[in-house]
Amino acid sequence: MAAIQPPKDPESNPRVKAVFDDIRSTRKSDFINNIWRYLAVDADMLERTWAEVKAVMATPSDLDPLTKELIYLAVSIINNCEYCVHSHSTAARAKGMTPSQHAEVLQIIALAAKTNQLSNAMQVPVDPEFMLSGE
Amino acid sequence: MAAIQPPKDPESNPRVKAVFDDIRSTRKSDFINNIWRYLAVDADMLERTWAEVKAVMATPSDLDPLTKELIYLAVSIINNCEYCVHSHSTAARAKGMTPSQHAEVLQIIALAAKTNQLSNAMQVPVDPEFMLSGE
Amino acid sequence: MAAIQPPKDPESNPRVKAVFDDIRSTRKSDFINNIWRYLAVDADMLERTWAEVKAVMATPSDLDPLTKELIYLAVSIINNCEYCVHSHSTAARAKGMTPSQHAEVLQIIALAAKTNQLSNAMQVPVDPEFMLSGE
Amino acid sequence: MAAIQPPKDPESNPRVKAVFDDIRSTRKSDFINNIWRYLAVDADMLERTWAEVKAVMATPSDLDPLTKELIYLAVSIINNCEYCVHSHSTAARAKGMTPSQHAEVLQIIALAAKTNQLSNAMQVPVDPEFMLSGE
Amino acid sequence: MAAIQPPKDPESNPRVKAVFDDIRSTRKSDFINNIWRYLAVDADMLERTWAEVKAVMATPSDLDPLTKELIYLAVSIINNCEYCVHSHSTAARAKGMTPSQHAEVLQIIALAAKTNQLSNAMQVPVDPEFMLSGE
Amino acid sequence: MAAIQPPKDPESNPRVKAVFDDIRSTRKSDFINNIWRYLAVDADMLERTWAEVKAVMATPSDLDPLTKELIYLAVSIINNCEYCVHSHSTAARAKGMTPSQHAEVLQIIALAAKTNQLSNAMQVPVDPEFMLSGE
Repeated sequence: MAAIQPPKDPESNPRVKAVFDDIRSTRKSDFINNIWRYLAVDADMLERTWAEVKAVMATPSDLDPLTKELIYLAVSIINNCEYCVHSHSTAARAKGMTPSQHAEVLQIIALAAKTNQLSNAMQVPVDPEFMLSGE
Repeated sequence: MAAIQPPKDPESNPRVKAVFDDIRSTRKSDFINNIWRYLAVDADMLERTWAEVKAVMATPSDLDPLTKELIYLAVSIINNCEYCVHSHSTAARAKGMTPSQHAEVLQIIALAAKTNQLSNAMQVPVDPEFMLSGE
Repeated sequence: MAAIQPPKDPESNPRVKAVFDDIRSTRKSDFINNIWRYLAVDADMLERTWAEVKAVMATPSDLDPLTKELIYLAVSIINNCEYCVHSHSTAARAKGMTPSQHAEVLQIIALAAKTNQLSNAMQVPVDPEFMLSGE
Repeated sequence: MAAIQPPKDPESNPRVKAVFDDIRSTRKSDFINNIWRYLAVDADMLERTWAEVKAVMATPSDLDPLTKELIYLAVSIINNCEYCVHSHSTAARAKGMTPSQHAEVLQIIALAAKTNQLSNAMQVPVDPEFMLSGE
Repeated sequence: MAAIQPPKDPESNPRVKAVFDDIRSTRKSDFINNIWRYLAVDADMLERTWAEVKAVMATPSDLDPLTKELIYLAVSIINNCEYCVHSHSTAARAKGMTPSQHAEVLQIIALAAKTNQLSNAMQVPVDPEFMLSGE
Repeated sequence: MAAIQPPKDPESNPRVKAVFDDIRSTRKSDFINNIWRYLAVDADMLERTWAEVKAVMATPSDLDPLTKELIYLAVSIINNCEYCVHSHSTAARAKGMTPSQHAEVLQIIALAAKTNQLSNAMQVPVDPEFMLSGE
């Protein structure tokens, strides 16, 4: 059950249509998943979010596409976004994540969550060795 | 200021010494950072945590060491563990993370946090297309 | 699926009935939503929670009712409380939130989540200019 | 202690200088606070973040500037961003938040955090009455 | 560095003095820790918070005082409240928590954080066997 | 809807069967709940997770089993793990948690969440009195 009403016919708004067309063309797929249909309640929000996703995730860069997707997935899990866990698990598989790599991601996340809590619980002081050389 | 008192002379406990020796040997470094000195309040906790870190992070696997470190860093940031942000930023640099890759990680984390909250705020329904084929 | 069994006939308990009557009278509505029916498992918990909601949210104050509701909604989104996102989105609409204001709230929350994570990730030092004059 | 090294002379980069100039001009103040000095490690990240802050927070809209700032502050508190709690408490005071309104914000946040956890703990089912009419 | 200015002479306000006197008398100690000095910016907020702490934590009940304190500590760690981790670690020690019990609490919290993330990451469906008999 | 495909016949893998047998024997019950069936996608992850649960939760120690379970439940609520809230509410009832104790746990969690946010919002400085004597 959604907490907001998405537009019934989003592409009747030319700004929405332009974003959807760019999503289809960038992803080489006709499928527009729900997050974009809901963001279409506000054309500014839709345009700005897609522009950022395209720039950060869909542009060749110094990190390979799968690594970027796994970082996105890790954040989505820790933020406990049900929608995002599904969409980014799917995206990671589409970008080549193997079942064995998926299991590794789970174990890294679980281990990090564990040591994060141990550090916070003990309020471990930061080692001076971690200080950046320029400081 | 720590919330727990670490042992004054941790390596007088042979179980602690064995873990510290293995950390030094695995990392090829004499440096034992604070989290291990604090976990040494309980030898079981220290042994179990190190065994897991060694198995998950320090063993060759289907993800390269830098990718694994970046996922660990992403989780640590979202869990807001100050100690861990410092230790894993340092570790990622040691494993080859360039300033440009660091800036990319920041932007992926920021974007994911943003779309995670948008999805949760609108309670976007999961697309049936994300369903696993075996279901 | 709930994790606790709410009382079958909550108003048979006179303390619960008194709270429910006050909710109806304060809100000028017969509708008692589920959170109150579940809190009724413990009359102390129900009375204390309602007294606080009434004092903080339903009493005229230096912030207007819609602003207070939007703050409540923002917290509920970040805490990822599905029930609360629904109940406080509904309450905000009842207090006059327009679709355009709703879209604005979403964008502020998304932007804040993003810059919060950037600050935490970089561990940006607090500017001395933010120090309170009295310190 | 920061986890990233900000550029020593950020305005030697003309893209950074252009953003800093726009911040000064938009805010009618010479003060550039630390978050912008740190984001300057990457000109894309700086430009995109400032463009979004300017569009969402510094452009007249259907919510008044103080309400928008209080929502930003609420999110920053729940995300436990120390830097952001300081910067947005300061910003809210600059936009007219009185001590009494500040105390109200604290109480709304505290109450919301409390009922969020109660709802999550009992897994309270969403009332059908909260369903949007269009569904 | 605090984000709010506490009153210089809080007990000049008779409502604040009454709360502080009750804290001293309930705890049989002259020490008023900082959270109460800061909450004193608003007498309503101070009175309501102390009344709740007294009712929930300082009144004999079906859970023993140490168990209650350990639950409070666990929540404070997961919410990453630095102040609260310190105050409730201290309180737990005052109520008899041994170093060995402290180490156990840390390990339970770490394990729970780990399995929580694994469940969320895999979106494990809730077993029907967990359904309450009354449903 | 799960985000990962659990193995169809997990006990055909002898390592999985050994873990499931040990779960049954430790818990004196034939019921294997879903988290274990999903963790079975990776035998290492399953073995390591069960070994830790068994050592921390199912071994006699300085905290009684119900106290340990309540701490686990508290963490699961704050981490908003729907599966874990259900499984650990059920486990706590099995270990003797009464409805009145359950209501107490809810109130402690709610109070802690509230004061955690108040402390973080005001950035209350840690009292020097909380410093550990050895420092």
